[in-house]
Amino acid sequence: MRIVDLITKKTAGLALSREEIQYFIDGYTKGNIPDYQASALLMAIFFQDMNDQERADLTMAMVNSGETIDLSAIEGIKVDKHSTGGVGDTTTLVLAPLVAALDIPVAKMSGRGLGHTGGTLDKLESAKGFHLEISKEEFINLVNTNKVAVIGQSGNLTPADKKLYALRDVTGTVNSIPLIASSIMSKKIAAGSDAIVLDVKTGAGAFMKTEEESVELAKAMVRIGNNVGRNTMAVISDMSQPLGYAIGNALEMQEAIDTLRGKGPADLMELSLVLGSQMVMLAKKANSLEDARKILLEVINNGKALEKFRLFLTSQGGDASIIDHPENLPQASYKIEVPAKASGYVRNIIADEVGIAAMWLGAGRATKEDEVDLGVGLILRKKVGDHVEIGESLVTIYANQSEVTKVMEKLYACIEIGEKVPAPKLIYQIITQ
Amino acid sequence: MRIVDLITKKTAGLALSREEIQYFIDGYTKGNIPDYQASALLMAIFFQDMNDQERADLTMAMVNSGETIDLSAIEGIKVDKHSTGGVGDTTTLVLAPLVAALDIPVAKMSGRGLGHTGGTLDKLESAKGFHLEISKEEFINLVNTNKVAVIGQSGNLTPADKKLYALRDVTGTVNSIPLIASSIMSKKIAAGSDAIVLDVKTGAGAFMKTEEESVELAKAMVRIGNNVGRNTMAVISDMSQPLGYAIGNALEMQEAIDTLRGKGPADLMELSLVLGSQMVMLAKKANSLEDARKILLEVINNGKALEKFRLFLTSQGGDASIIDHPENLPQASYKIEVPAKASGYVRNIIADEVGIAAMWLGAGRATKEDEVDLGVGLILRKKVGDHVEIGESLVTIYANQSEVTKVMEKLYACIEIGEKVPAPKLIYQIITQ
Repeated sequence: MRIVDLITKKTAGLALSREEIQYFIDGYTKGNIPDYQASALLMAIFFQDMNDQERADLTMAMVNSGETIDLSAIEGIKVDKHSTGGVGDTTTLVLAPLVAALDIPVAKMSGRGLGHTGGTLDKLESAKGFHLEISKEEFINLVNTNKVAVIGQSGNLTPADKKLYALRDVTGTVNSIPLIASSIMSKKIAAGSDAIVLDVKTGAGAFMKTEEESVELAKAMVRIGNNVGRNTMAVISDMSQPLGYAIGNALEMQEAIDTLRGKGPADLMELSLVLGSQMVMLAKKANSLEDARKILLEVINNGKALEKFRLFLTSQGGDASIIDHPENLPQASYKIEVPAKASGYVRNIIADEVGIAAMWLGAGRATKEDEVDLGVGLILRKKVGDHVEIGESLVTIYANQSEVTKVMEKLYACIEIGEKVPAPKLIYQIITQ
Repeated sequence: MRIVDLITKKTAGLALSREEIQYFIDGYTKGNIPDYQASALLMAIFFQDMNDQERADLTMAMVNSGETIDLSAIEGIKVDKHSTGGVGDTTTLVLAPLVAALDIPVAKMSGRGLGHTGGTLDKLESAKGFHLEISKEEFINLVNTNKVAVIGQSGNLTPADKKLYALRDVTGTVNSIPLIASSIMSKKIAAGSDAIVLDVKTGAGAFMKTEEESVELAKAMVRIGNNVGRNTMAVISDMSQPLGYAIGNALEMQEAIDTLRGKGPADLMELSLVLGSQMVMLAKKANSLEDARKILLEVINNGKALEKFRLFLTSQGGDASIIDHPENLPQASYKIEVPAKASGYVRNIIADEVGIAAMWLGAGRATKEDEVDLGVGLILRKKVGDHVEIGESLVTIYANQSEVTKVMEKLYACIEIGEKVPAPKLIYQIITQ
């Protein structure tokens, strides 16, 4: 087999066989196929696409390029949830204890990522002492006992994907449905869950800006999952404006606690219930989505969800006093309001721009070396469709610096006030095949 | 400027500016842009094409990546002829002395190439002692005095093209009209001629297998030439079967001499006259193609063309006795006939397969290190449309080995005998814009 023949085959619009894809991924991971041939093949895939079989084969070739996690020692159906990423997305913090409270095992891997805020791990570290340096045995024991635990990301999960992603990033081949879908799915599958609920964001703050693109990506991922034997479904949800009100690590932790108490923002609560119901269904803990929602609301209302969160934090060394004593969360030195310059209705809050403002405050990482400041961030006081009076606060800035002119300017630039518009739809579609 | 942005622009189907193309070619030639980004951009061009302006800009960027030849010290309009390559194509050997006999300056650069037979230089070396190690001054003096001379290829002509071609070869991006056209034209333009006649081959033995593709390539090259101020036109000519009868270095030399004497194969003579007439017109040595053809025939009939060839060979150290004494050409030890296995008409002589058979005999180079055997090759005894009796020779093999079974099998496999077919058309189209 020669890689140049595979490139030529793909440029001609033909499908690659499983063996050919395996040859490419193996050879590239081991360094036998050079970057310049890999990038040419990626660009050919960018233009000629891949069929369902190729996408499944590519995903599994990447899964098999490195370590895979064996969760078979954990009892029950392990359901993972994955979000394609947005601004102020606190659903993971809510869902992990919420579904665990229904005895659905949540065995999560987490790492620190780049982005507007830190990753789930950074947010969890708002509970002082929380750590995920636990052994694999400890992890499995914790999930079997508590139904929820988080472990650090293995360094050798899907090395092919890591190498290919770095190459795509510098060769203009990031924005390709088969490549995005197989990249995400390979990581999820290597992480060992039996079933996967995908939260595919759509809108200005999402990677996929239109509903159409988001549906295409969702379908691609759902098909890959089902084709390789993992029960997979997707929810298309709004990311035209940030989800919830909080953007920042400790601020989102607080918002998650509020939500587990039944007092969170309406959109965050609703999305958590929609995603949670799908997880409950995939875990076979309810016979209908209605029943699933009902039992999720039960564990919120009877406090079991919040108790599960307390147990989860404590088991991994975290200070659970934050649940009842928010003052124990990392605090920001300055709280600065951003007053509306006119009266009217909020028409738009450009999610990714708000995220950048939060990152400027120190809530997220632009490079791996950046330190995240857990206490800083933004609390939206208004969302799209809300009325606002001149001088009323649009956003509260939580900062560890008094000089926030640039952040304020950014916020003014991305929050539009004018004629009344309806609040955007939260859930666009449910994709099951 | 960032190369990844140029890749993204091209993948989106947008045109690159002259500055952007310059940035790419400069950066790639100097090694500042890595192969993996260059190959991604080439693949994007493969799919999204380039408009006329981009093609001209790419060509000139490659021309300016290295040395260019200044022929201004040579009097008159310098007209170059370029063939896209075929099997048994002896037109260069015929045309150089033929048009020089009309006082049109022929200032050729030549090198050794890979292929079924050697390059023009190998063929010229059939005249013992011929060499092109002459200084630039000597070269220009020779052209001014004799109207024809050949010099060795400069090592530093269009380095960008050399580097890009090597990359295209291993990344599945060879077969792209804008990339082929700019590659060929950059070399021709750097070589310094004022006007260019292109012989674009079409058929099984050509790079472009169909008339449609050949016309597309021809138009692309003609437009590039004219857009950058070189008068350029193209002839689309047949390469479904080899041109002439001879395939091999000394054998083609002999065939060229025969043709300059007016006794060559009809197709080689006709194509030489068609290409030659266009060269005469571009050199402004005739007012019409009819007049051009007339004066070309004159110098053949009155012996001036052959005398020019004698002068040319002698001036560069070559043994011109071969013109009257073919026995002084390199000889093969064995002449083996390939008898027809059936009576009928020759329906097909697959040109590239015949070329491979000649290469197996040692007439050409598969790798740079291969030595060419000047004496060996093939003489076709029949061409497409000819009648043949069982046992009559189809081809004479000129070999320096007695064992030629494999070559014979190849020849039988690529010469089809059956029902009568017409001889293929020789000239398909003339492209002037």
